[in-house]
Amino acid sequence: MNVGKVTPISGFLEFLPEERIVEQHFLDVIRETFELHGFASIETRAVEPVERLAGKGGDVDKEIYGVSRLGRRRDDAGSADRPDSAEAELGLHFDLTVPFARYVLENAGRLAFPFKRYQIQRVWRGERPQEGRYREFTQCDIDVVDTGSLAAHFEAEMPLVVADAFNRLPIGEFVIQVNNRKIPEGFYRGIGLSDIAGTLRIVDKLDKVGPDAVRTMLLDAGASDHQASQCLALASIRSADLGFIEKVRALGVADETLEEGLAALAAVIQAAMVHTPGVLVADLKIARGLDYYTGTVYETQLVGFESWGSFCSGGRYDALASDGRQAYPGVGISIGLTRMLGLLVGKGLVRASRSTPAAVLVAVVSEADRSRSAAIAAALRSRGIPCDVAPAAAKFGKQIRYAERRGIPFVWFPGEDGDQVKDIRSGEQVPAESANWRPPTADLRPSISRVDPSR
Amino acid sequence: MNVGKVTPISGFLEFLPEERIVEQHFLDVIRETFELHGFASIETRAVEPVERLAGKGGDVDKEIYGVSRLGRRRDDAGSADRPDSAEAELGLHFDLTVPFARYVLENAGRLAFPFKRYQIQRVWRGERPQEGRYREFTQCDIDVVDTGSLAAHFEAEMPLVVADAFNRLPIGEFVIQVNNRKIPEGFYRGIGLSDIAGTLRIVDKLDKVGPDAVRTMLLDAGASDHQASQCLALASIRSADLGFIEKVRALGVADETLEEGLAALAAVIQAAMVHTPGVLVADLKIARGLDYYTGTVYETQLVGFESWGSFCSGGRYDALASDGRQAYPGVGISIGLTRMLGLLVGKGLVRASRSTPAAVLVAVVSEADRSRSAAIAAALRSRGIPCDVAPAAAKFGKQIRYAERRGIPFVWFPGEDGDQVKDIRSGEQVPAESANWRPPTADLRPSISRVDPSR
Repeated sequence: MNVGKVTPISGFLEFLPEERIVEQHFLDVIRETFELHGFASIETRAVEPVERLAGKGGDVDKEIYGVSRLGRRRDDAGSADRPDSAEAELGLHFDLTVPFARYVLENAGRLAFPFKRYQIQRVWRGERPQEGRYREFTQCDIDVVDTGSLAAHFEAEMPLVVADAFNRLPIGEFVIQVNNRKIPEGFYRGIGLSDIAGTLRIVDKLDKVGPDAVRTMLLDAGASDHQASQCLALASIRSADLGFIEKVRALGVADETLEEGLAALAAVIQAAMVHTPGVLVADLKIARGLDYYTGTVYETQLVGFESWGSFCSGGRYDALASDGRQAYPGVGISIGLTRMLGLLVGKGLVRASRSTPAAVLVAVVSEADRSRSAAIAAALRSRGIPCDVAPAAAKFGKQIRYAERRGIPFVWFPGEDGDQVKDIRSGEQVPAESANWRPPTADLRPSISRVDPSR
Repeated sequence: MNVGKVTPISGFLEFLPEERIVEQHFLDVIRETFELHGFASIETRAVEPVERLAGKGGDVDKEIYGVSRLGRRRDDAGSADRPDSAEAELGLHFDLTVPFARYVLENAGRLAFPFKRYQIQRVWRGERPQEGRYREFTQCDIDVVDTGSLAAHFEAEMPLVVADAFNRLPIGEFVIQVNNRKIPEGFYRGIGLSDIAGTLRIVDKLDKVGPDAVRTMLLDAGASDHQASQCLALASIRSADLGFIEKVRALGVADETLEEGLAALAAVIQAAMVHTPGVLVADLKIARGLDYYTGTVYETQLVGFESWGSFCSGGRYDALASDGRQAYPGVGISIGLTRMLGLLVGKGLVRASRSTPAAVLVAVVSEADRSRSAAIAAALRSRGIPCDVAPAAAKFGKQIRYAERRGIPFVWFPGEDGDQVKDIRSGEQVPAESANWRPPTADLRPSISRVDPSR
């Protein structure tokens, strides 16, 4: 096969085998956590009709990768052999929410509601690549969707699922920030501002431009000095307990929607205080997504890496999808796995103990005896021990180096008077039988560990 | 979100949650088997430059899905904001071999050779959809690639990995058919035919058109009556042991390449007779792929579903990739998972016991007591038991129906005087504590079973 020169494509991340083992560990932990919480897996096709992808309006279509058969494009003049010439224009999905909404509508009669699903897939966006932004990346989503109305308790449960997953991963300290769309909406209305969406968009710039610039923008948009101050005061409120309620009340704004929002956010924080204290924080400056979410919203930061933005976001929406007769409200949260690994693997903060699943290398004494080594490997595998057989009956020193190079901890030597197994880290070698020997549990799979960044 | 009407896209298969659980089981078993055999996982980006994809020549480009940013296409007049206007045209990969070859070249300096990798990903082909053929499908590949030369024993090991995986899956009886390129090549040359590739292409039609039509085509291509008979005689040879050697010898053709091929195929069959007797069959009519493979080739059929074609194919190649200085010979085999599930799930031959990972539904006595049910669920989850909490404090009958509808086997009732758990299949209800109760191991995960097709 002639393959020509090889160059990476900007924005498309690929891992080496030892890095992929880190990614697999993250995927396994996330999947297992989602399943422990009773979410069922689905996967959707990679493509959707472009008109569905672009349905949200705005300039999102600039980020969509269109997909079309090359043969079809080149055959544009002809038509006889184009069975799909009438097919809709297709694009790669840029998130998992749009395809999930379509899947729910398509299969509504065959799904049991409330439907709790998780979906772990790649998505594609034609954005300009930059640190932490990729053109192809993996998202890990959970959503609960119901018909008609959705119980409020699900809004409290979603971030706790993520907290369970993150607590089992070597990602360091993290904070899940929560807000509720009804709080700023009711508050802004209560102080006499009517352009809710516009005000949210300005407040969303707080982290980027600071409070003075936000004040100027609010004034430019027609807010009074007092209204601007009140907006900034609300945005500065933050608490890991129910303290945020008193702080909002102290601003002296009365509004029914505001009160609903405070009660809803209190329920979320309270559930978190029972489940995993300190991990959820009410943070009233969170504004991103509040223009399309209708209730709780979530963002997640890794402590010390705040400038990387949110690694896990989501919220409550009243109409994920609608087929005209039936609405499907839901709540969802999405882990940006590739962004997280781009940081942790890219910066060398997390590492796998080896580059292969094999825990044991079975040495080969001579090529004539290869079947004996293969039988030892088969015996180990039948008891769930991943192993490899040396590729050549080279000198044992060379076979040991094969294991060393890959981080395989044990080398097995078939012997006339019984086999021996050597831990090549310690050098300790002991007699062993393939029918009953086991490596220590910690060595059975590659281990994943946090690397001290100070070293 | 306005989503308009919803219609499936021909050739793009999607599963319902209970079907996806079958797929996950297959993926898990295949991955675990690959890892037990010491293959390391990699994943490659979904796109490659079109010129690399089309590199094999022929009309394969007709099947390639081209990918381009919609914004870019529409902006074709402008250029200032097109940072990637100079980028190569991209297409979705149509197999995992082309991207793997590119990955090996790109990372050659950072990989340890021989490099054993597995890769489980979706691929896309713009072919006309038909039974067993999809436009988006998942392939599960293993390859061993080395620098310079590749040891012959790997050719014997590849199909045994697949046999191990298939033996653990509810797919019924299967046969892995093996041939070696050198056998027909040497044989054809030995009887005086020089157009090896052309002859192979004709013999490849045997299953489709039968021996009489193949004979006619061979004669049309210039073969003598005796040569055509010899070709058909060779193609009729098949044995699950070394019997094929005698049968070939009985045809009285002497050729050095033929002898090499017989010895190589004997080694493959012999290793299989030790490892999993009866699963590998030497079948000398296998010709598909022999024009680009250089040694052993594999095809796999499910007994009773021969008309569906091969579910797992591959072979030995002398140059997977080459960077001009270094050649990378290899051997690989690829499981067509989507085709297999399209049959087994599509025809209802394999079924999951439930549509959710949850083994237990924790009932909710009243919304005020929801936190108590959540604590029970957390206790069960902390011991690895997947569970769900009832979405509403409805009557217990309704909560039980929630479990029934999803196939969740157990419902947990929090009680004033201690909890109880009910197996809703048998109706048996017993006292239980969330700190130590376990479901039977068989109920912990959804089970996957073969459905008797005669029922």
